[in-house]
Amino acid sequence: MEKMASFVEYGPECEFPIENLPYGIFSTVDNQKPRPGVAIGDKVLDLSVVKGLFTGPLLSKNQHVFEQENLNALMGLGKSSWDECRQTLQRILSASESVLRDSPLCQSALVNQADVTMHLPAKIGDYTDFYSSIEHATNVGTMFRGKDNALMPNWKHLPVGYHGRASSVVVSGTPVRRPLGQSCPVEGQPPVFGPCKLLDIELEMAFFVGNGTALGEPIPIEKTADHIFGLVLMNDWSARDIQKWEYVPLGPFLAKNFATTISPWVVPLAALDPFKTANYSQVDPQPLPYLRHEDPFTFDIPLSVAIKPEDSSEETIICESNFKNMYWTMKQQLAHHTISGCNMNPGDLLASGTISGSDPKSYGSMLELSWRGTKPISLRDGSTRSFLRDGDQVIIRGHAQSKGYRVGFGECSGIILPALSHS
Amino acid sequence: MEKMASFVEYGPECEFPIENLPYGIFSTVDNQKPRPGVAIGDKVLDLSVVKGLFTGPLLSKNQHVFEQENLNALMGLGKSSWDECRQTLQRILSASESVLRDSPLCQSALVNQADVTMHLPAKIGDYTDFYSSIEHATNVGTMFRGKDNALMPNWKHLPVGYHGRASSVVVSGTPVRRPLGQSCPVEGQPPVFGPCKLLDIELEMAFFVGNGTALGEPIPIEKTADHIFGLVLMNDWSARDIQKWEYVPLGPFLAKNFATTISPWVVPLAALDPFKTANYSQVDPQPLPYLRHEDPFTFDIPLSVAIKPEDSSEETIICESNFKNMYWTMKQQLAHHTISGCNMNPGDLLASGTISGSDPKSYGSMLELSWRGTKPISLRDGSTRSFLRDGDQVIIRGHAQSKGYRVGFGECSGIILPALSHS
Repeated sequence: MEKMASFVEYGPECEFPIENLPYGIFSTVDNQKPRPGVAIGDKVLDLSVVKGLFTGPLLSKNQHVFEQENLNALMGLGKSSWDECRQTLQRILSASESVLRDSPLCQSALVNQADVTMHLPAKIGDYTDFYSSIEHATNVGTMFRGKDNALMPNWKHLPVGYHGRASSVVVSGTPVRRPLGQSCPVEGQPPVFGPCKLLDIELEMAFFVGNGTALGEPIPIEKTADHIFGLVLMNDWSARDIQKWEYVPLGPFLAKNFATTISPWVVPLAALDPFKTANYSQVDPQPLPYLRHEDPFTFDIPLSVAIKPEDSSEETIICESNFKNMYWTMKQQLAHHTISGCNMNPGDLLASGTISGSDPKSYGSMLELSWRGTKPISLRDGSTRSFLRDGDQVIIRGHAQSKGYRVGFGECSGIILPALSHS
Repeated sequence: MEKMASFVEYGPECEFPIENLPYGIFSTVDNQKPRPGVAIGDKVLDLSVVKGLFTGPLLSKNQHVFEQENLNALMGLGKSSWDECRQTLQRILSASESVLRDSPLCQSALVNQADVTMHLPAKIGDYTDFYSSIEHATNVGTMFRGKDNALMPNWKHLPVGYHGRASSVVVSGTPVRRPLGQSCPVEGQPPVFGPCKLLDIELEMAFFVGNGTALGEPIPIEKTADHIFGLVLMNDWSARDIQKWEYVPLGPFLAKNFATTISPWVVPLAALDPFKTANYSQVDPQPLPYLRHEDPFTFDIPLSVAIKPEDSSEETIICESNFKNMYWTMKQQLAHHTISGCNMNPGDLLASGTISGSDPKSYGSMLELSWRGTKPISLRDGSTRSFLRDGDQVIIRGHAQSKGYRVGFGECSGIILPALSHS
C-alpha cells in the first residue's frame, strides 16, 4: 500500500498520521463543551466544526453524532458508518484534496493538541477485564499456587474474565489516589486498615464495543469484528494487598475499583489492520467451536511502561511488552462474553488483562517484574521499587510501526497521590 | 403515628398505600414515552402531569426531573429533595387536600396500574452484588468446602461483593432465556458446551444509590443513609454449572450476566423507616471502625419466592425469607464499597446477595433448597424441581407489614425461555 499524505504536516515518528485517525473527546479554553475530534499530526480535527463535510449516504443523515459529548452515538451507528466516516476523514485530510484545506473552516477546525483538554472518549456502560495473557496467568499462578498448578483447569478452555467498575475508568492524566482498605498481612490474624502498601500497575489494552446487541443474542465469532470500534491503552491500577484478602471467592473488588486509566485516543480497528499477526497456537486443547477462528486477529503493537519518580526528571522504562502476547483474541473474548446472551452496548469497554511476554522484562505488572517484591526494580535515579510510591508517575505508551508510519494511542499516564488521612 | 388516608381508595392489603409511594418509570398505550410515576392504590400518579404541583423550595427549580425517561435525575438531587418530594406527594394525595383531587388534572394524572407498561426505573451505571447473608454463605461454603471451612476468613471482616453486569438488569416481566455456555460435568475431563442445566434463582433485595460521589471520596458510614434512594426486589438468576467451571479465580461472570430481574417500584428508604429492627450481632469479630454503626439499619421485610410451571395454573411457594436475615447492613455495604475511593453515581444498584435464613424453608436459592439437587423441591402440580425448567415462571414478592398498612414493591417475576438452538 502506498503511503498516504495529508496536508497537515508531521514527521515519520508522529503517532497520528493519516493512516491512524483516532477518535477522542476534547475541549478547549475557548469552547469548554466536550466534543469529538480526530488526531492528525500535532492537531485535533474538531468534528463538530466539519460535520457538514460528512456527506456520504450514511453519515449525511447522522451528522449529530459529531456534536455529542461522547463517542457513543458514533459507535452505535455500526461498522458501515465507521468505514464511511474514516473514508471521508482520509479524503478531506489528504494532501490532494482542497475541500477542507482551502476552506475558511480549516483554521477553526484544526486545533493544536497542546491546547486541548482530553476527556473520557465514551460513556462506559459496562467494563469487563479479561485475563488473556498466558504468561501473566502463569506467573501469577506460579507465585500463588506453585509451578505445577499455575494455570487453572479452565484457563485454556475459555477467556477468563470478570466484570469491573465502569464509574472509575478515567482518562490519561487523571491523578490516582492511593486507596484505603483492609489487608491481612499475617495469615490467620485479624485484618488491618490503612493505605494500600502494594500498589501496582497492570499494562493492558482494551477495546470499545461499537454497535450493541439485544439481551439473549450471542455474537457469533465470525461477526465479532463488526462490533469492535477501536482500541486504547489501559492501566488497570491494582491494590495487591487489598486484593489478596478480599478476592476469595467472588473475585477482585475494591482492589481494582479506585481507578482504571485509559489513553485518550481510540484507534479504529481499521487502522490496526496492517499489524495483524499470527494467533497464539491453541491446539492442546483446541477451544470449543464457538471460540474457534482461523483468521489472524492478534496485533503487533509494542508497548512500554515507564515510571517517573516525583522528585526526578528522569523516567525509567520498567517493562517492554507487546499486544501480540495474547493467548485469547478479542474475537474470542467478545464471542465468549456474549455466548450467555449478555447484551453489549456502544461504549462498553473490554480489556485484555495484564499483557506479559515470556521475557522477564516484558512482564506487565510490578508484582511480576519484582517477583512479589523479591527482585526490586532499579530506577535511573538510583531508587528501587517493588510497588508504587506516592508521587510516582506511570506512563504507558504504545504504537504499531509500519514502513514509514506509526499508529499510536497517546500516553496513558497517572500520578499517585497520597492516601487520604484516616483514623 | 396515626394512619394516613388518601383520596385514592384502597384496602388494608394494598401494597401501595400513601405511606409507601414508590417511584417507577411507566408508559401507556396513549403516551408511549416512559416517564416517572408513583404507585398509589391500584393507580399510578403520572408525575409528568402534576410536576407543577412540586412548588417546594428545592423542587420548584427542578420540575424537569419529572419528565425524564428514568429516575436518575431525581435520584441525583439528594436527600433533602427526596424528602420534599415525598412530603409534597403525601400532601397532594391526602384525603384532606383538594389541590389534586378537585383539579381538572386529576383524571389524566391517575392512570390504572393495569393499563401501564413498567420500565427499568433507572439507567444503571454500575451494578454490584454483595454476599451478605451469613446463612447463605455458610450453606454454599458447607456444600463446596465442608462445614469446618464454610465461611472464608474474610467473610466476617468485610461485606464480600463483586461487580456485576449492569446492561442485563431487566424489569420484572422480561422473559429470561436459558443461557448457553461451558460447563465441566466431570472434573478433570474437558468441558462441554450447551444450555445451562442448573439454572437457579437468587432471592435478593437491592438499593439504588441516589446522590453520587467523586472519585477518591469514601462515604463515612454515618453519611451512607443519605445516599440510599430506595429499594427493590431482585432475582439474580444464576447458571450454577457455568459458574462452577468459570469462577476460579476471578469470580462469577457469564453465570450471572444473562439477566438480573428487579421489581418495577423503588420504595423510598423513608417508607421503610418504621420497619427497622435490630442489626445482626457482630461481636466476634467486631468489624473495623469504618464499618461500625450502632443504629438499627436492618429491615423486617418478609419475602417469598414462588414457581409456577408452564402448564400449571398453580404456583408453589418454595421459599419464605426476610430481608432482616442480613449480617451486613446497607450502610456497611456502601461504606465498604467506597472506602477505596470508588465513586458512586445516581442509579448505581447495590444488591444484598442471596437472602437465606436459618430455617431450610427460608433458603434463597434452589441450590440450597434442594441441597445441590439431593432434596428435590415438590411443587403443587406433583412435579419436582432441583433447578428451573423451561417455561417456569419465578415470582418474588415482599412487603413490610405495619399495623393497618403494607409497604410493597410489586412482583419481581420472569419466565424461563428455552435456550437458543446451537450446533
